Formats: sequence, C-alpha cells, structure tokens
Amino acid sequence: MPLVRLTVARGLSRERLAALSEGVHRALVTVANAPADDRFQVIEEVPPENVVWTPSYLGIEHHAPLAFVQVFMNVGRTVEVKKALYAALADAVAAAAPIRREDVIVNLVEVARENWSFGGGVMSYPPAP
Amino acid sequence: MPLVRLTVARGLSRERLAALSEGVHRALVTVANAPADDRFQVIEEVPPENVVWTPSYLGIEHHAPLAFVQVFMNVGRTVEVKKALYAALADAVAAAAPIRREDVIVNLVEVARENWSFGGGVMSYPPAP
Amino acid sequence: MPLVRLTVARGLSRERLAALSEGVHRALVTVANAPADDRFQVIEEVPPENVVWTPSYLGIEHHAPLAFVQVFMNVGRTVEVKKALYAALADAVAAAAPIRREDVIVNLVEVARENWSFGGGVMSYPPAP
Repeated sequence: MPLVRLTVARGLSRERLAALSEGVHRALVTVANAPADDRFQVIEEVPPENVVWTPSYLGIEHHAPLAFVQVFMNVGRTVEVKKALYAALADAVAAAAPIRREDVIVNLVEVARENWSFGGGVMSYPPAP
Repeated sequence: MPLVRLTVARGLSRERLAALSEGVHRALVTVANAPADDRFQVIEEVPPENVVWTPSYLGIEHHAPLAFVQVFMNVGRTVEVKKALYAALADAVAAAAPIRREDVIVNLVEVARENWSFGGGVMSYPPAP
Repeated sequence: MPLVRLTVARGLSRERLAALSEGVHRALVTVANAPADDRFQVIEEVPPENVVWTPSYLGIEHHAPLAFVQVFMNVGRTVEVKKALYAALADAVAAAAPIRREDVIVNLVEVARENWSFGGGVMSYPPAP
C-alpha cells in the first residue's frame, strides 16, 4: 500500500537504483509495517538541474545529489512510527547510493484505506468502518 | 478536477498512449462523475526497470507491463463509486494497451474542493461550507 | 515544506526553467508564508503529447503549452490564502515562460505537519497537538 515516488538526478547506475529501491522498501517493511510483498514504486530520473533544493533549511545543509522520497500510504501511522521511518529511509538511501543522510528528503501523503486497487479492478482493502 | 498521473514503461506507441489517456478519462467520467471536459493528465514514461512491482500481492500475480494510475481528485466519492472506478479503470487500460487487468494499480488521493485552479489564477470550485 | 512538482512539455530552455522554478517559489514565499529557504521542487519535462488537457473547462480556454503546478504542503492555509496563491502562481509562470495565465493548472495536496523530513532522518516539524 505504499506507492513510492523516488526522485533522483540521472546518472546513478542500474545497480545503485536497484539498491535504492530495495533499501526504501525494506525501511517501509521494517519500520512502518508494510507487507513484504507490497512493493510498488516509480523511480523518476531527471536531469540534475530538475531536482531543485535549498542550500540550507532548518539547520541542515544540502549538497547534490539529493533524493526525494515521496510515500503515498494509508493514514494511521503514529508520530513515533513516522520518526522511525524517516531515520530508516535516510539510512537506507545513504547505504545504497552516494547520497548523504542529510540529503534524503521525505514526504508522506496519507490516504484512506479504500483508495487502493492493486490489480484486477478490485478495491484492495476494506474501508475503515 | 481529477489530475491523473499515468505511469508506464517506455515503449508503447503514441496511439496506445492516446487510447490509454482516453480510456482512463472515460472511466472517470462514466463512473466517478467527472465532467467530460475536465481532463488533465500527465503521462509518465519511464525505463521499464523504473516501474517497480511485486510478483504477487493479495493473491494477484503481476506481470510486466504494469500501469500505475494515480488520481488526484476531490474528496467525497463513496466506497461504491470507488469500487466501480477501479473496475472501470482496469477495463479501460486493458482495452487500450497490452496490459492485463491484474496489472492496473490505482491510487486515489483526495483533496479539498478549494485546492484547484484550472487556469486564470482563480480558485475553480467554491470551497465546501 | 512545499514539495512542488512542476510539469511542462519539453523544449523550454534552462533559463526559462530556472525562472519558472524561481517564480513558483517566490509565489509560495510571498503569498503562502513558505520560508524563503524552504525550496524543494521536481521539474518534470515530458513530451508535449504527455501533457494532456481539455480545450476548455469552466469557461477557460486552454492552449499549449500548459504548466501543471502540484504543491504538496502543510494543511491549514485559508481559502483566502489559496486564492491569492493561485493568482500569484499564474502571474509567476506567465512572467517566466511563454505560458498564458489561463494555462497554469494548480493542484494543492495538503498533508500533516509531521509528514516531512528535510534531511538527516529527522521529523522536521513538531506534530500538531
């Protein structure tokens, strides 16, 4: 039920991209209770200039390359889970690619459980009561 | 008011992509009450490896190519409408391209009515009371 | 805290894209109270046919090229601020590129304050009480 959009500047090898994909998925499974076989991602490779970032925000300095990890997922994770997820995603990206933990930008977009169909034209989860 | 992000692996012909775009729109109009002239879509073509999917989830087996259909739309459709929409989208994609119904992944992201401007710098819909 | 996805047809020069990026950011800062050093954007350049639009909707006629501006941001802006933001974004895009105000399509997606990490694996904002 996460749909992940992982955005990076072009230039990473296929192996790096696969490791990034795997690391991000593992973080979601380990920390945010996503099922292991629930993995749907789009990897967006764009020209370096098309990843736009600020040199510094909230006391964290940024340096290219950055990774944007946007996660569309079901509503309901606690603040504690989200905090753990941010740490796990930063670790995973930094382990998989030459991207610093400081340069992993995460945005969560939460949706209702009834807002997914994982194939076959059927609603995948029962709606919240 | 839907903004659709339709993500597929590169390689479909222009005619297929146009048919996909048309089919997805028609499903939204027929089933989810979108106005016929309310059609805004981005078609994202990425390298095949950049569409990441699980071989099987919730009992549905997946085989390349998959289509991800992400629909940003106003909040308020009922569960029944959403169910019908999933079926209609799977049918439409399968009719337009060599993609199986099982491989049509849909995610709905609902927003407030006041969250759209369809040009001219104006808010397009009156906010909910 | 906005993450902006700016989608345009390929063909704009680097200078135009940079001006678009700057203009969109300035609109968010000036009108929607985004911090000046809070700038994270993805510029999506796609083939012209992959930006799909309706010739006319709600009395506004559209002509290529269009710009889609999707803003992921914290929940809580008022209707008045959103109205001002639509106007400012249309002005900014039209000033930066040969795109008419009528052809600037904006969608806001609001998320909880706790849904961001701007690097370092930490939650960037305290959650709402």
